[in-house]
Amino acid sequence: MSELETRLGLKKMENETDRIPVLRFTQEGKSSVEDIVVREFSLTIVLNGQELVTLLCSPTKLQYLAVGFLLSEGLVNGKDDIKKTVVDGQRGVAEVETGDVIGIPSGRVLASSGGRSLASEGIQKVSADPQTQLPASQVFSLMEDFVQCSRIFKATGGVHSAALCDTKGILVFSEDIGRHNAIDKIFGECLLKDMATDNQIIVTSGRVSSEILVKVARRNIPILVSKSAPTDLGVKLANDLGITLIGFVRGKKMNVYANGWRVTG
Amino acid sequence: MSELETRLGLKKMENETDRIPVLRFTQEGKSSVEDIVVREFSLTIVLNGQELVTLLCSPTKLQYLAVGFLLSEGLVNGKDDIKKTVVDGQRGVAEVETGDVIGIPSGRVLASSGGRSLASEGIQKVSADPQTQLPASQVFSLMEDFVQCSRIFKATGGVHSAALCDTKGILVFSEDIGRHNAIDKIFGECLLKDMATDNQIIVTSGRVSSEILVKVARRNIPILVSKSAPTDLGVKLANDLGITLIGFVRGKKMNVYANGWRVTG
Repeated sequence: MSELETRLGLKKMENETDRIPVLRFTQEGKSSVEDIVVREFSLTIVLNGQELVTLLCSPTKLQYLAVGFLLSEGLVNGKDDIKKTVVDGQRGVAEVETGDVIGIPSGRVLASSGGRSLASEGIQKVSADPQTQLPASQVFSLMEDFVQCSRIFKATGGVHSAALCDTKGILVFSEDIGRHNAIDKIFGECLLKDMATDNQIIVTSGRVSSEILVKVARRNIPILVSKSAPTDLGVKLANDLGITLIGFVRGKKMNVYANGWRVTG
Repeated sequence: MSELETRLGLKKMENETDRIPVLRFTQEGKSSVEDIVVREFSLTIVLNGQELVTLLCSPTKLQYLAVGFLLSEGLVNGKDDIKKTVVDGQRGVAEVETGDVIGIPSGRVLASSGGRSLASEGIQKVSADPQTQLPASQVFSLMEDFVQCSRIFKATGGVHSAALCDTKGILVFSEDIGRHNAIDKIFGECLLKDMATDNQIIVTSGRVSSEILVKVARRNIPILVSKSAPTDLGVKLANDLGITLIGFVRGKKMNVYANGWRVTG
């Protein structure tokens, strides 16, 4: 285990994966081998006694996921809003109590591949320190560390990763079978650990749709870096919300889709 | 355009993508270039006058998507259930009328990255012709054709693909920013064109979670082939539902996770 993985508190994979027998075909013929697959878990979030949603996710950091989901949905705005959280990992239930009775949206908005409400109303342009800039070389370096930390992906190919970074390196890292969940886990952890997200950087392995932009803007994060592709609406929102959007970071290549003035070098 | 693409009716990309200016960084420095990104579209399905769901999707085959979604959700069971569909591509609304008044499920079940209700109740083991078998070499060949047809993915890296195949080749192909949508478009097209899905094969670019298995089992499809990884629950359901699950088909390699007796050679 590398120094970086130890510093970020990444542990050995146990709960997140399972070993199963597989029939493997190659040009040399077929053979019976053991393979590692990612585990899929079902978490129901109960808000103030009312069932809100069931998320299919990876079975780790469930409290962070529940809180991060509520944050991203705008149902919680800060740590003070949360009076109590009880996570039952056996039953797959996270009960969250907030001070006020919050109106739960009734409509179903299912996403491209994330299943979240767009809720773009009330999303404001990020107000970041104009000094927040990032050399291109540092983007490559962050992505290199990010890929190194993605242990479950390397073992199974079945998860997405997300990280909160500052211009020096990774601060918080998570993996989940859902690309939205991986980011929500980051935001939940930051809230509960009193870590500010303003002026920071989000790195994701996943595609960047409009919903991801909205989620990141809600946390006032000025720089979003992805290993994958954005959609046209993702790019439009990044421009409108003042977010620097970087995609396809692979090796020493990348595309800057919006607000490129924050990228130097 | 290849013979295969012509036969499948794949047209030039117009509506599905957009060209935007991008700042590209490489080891040689930065340059302003034009890049192609995938378009993101919002489709609201109105069922019998009641707003059911808003899907973020690619702006093609919207009628197939609406019908396929209703099929996968169990809200429609056959072509006769559909009395009328009106798709307004400008407003992004698909109105569907069915004969009976159908109870719309009220709970929200959001997925790992698909946003669909599990609805595994009532899902039965597939009843396929025991003769339906597939040589390993044909799986590799199907995936080769599949990758060749994935034009929007090759141009943008921002979509998933899905195809219905028989043991000889691809019958129906679609791409969408959502991996669930890509499959639902296939099922909607098959229903409206009276193409049976029984005893056929589904190929997908996306990860295989429990929801994908349920969706495929509902259409009584005995073989599911993916370029990507399955989850543990995906493998379990494939075993339980009698579906042959093949993953990580890349070049001349693949893993068979369940019901390998249908794969010969």
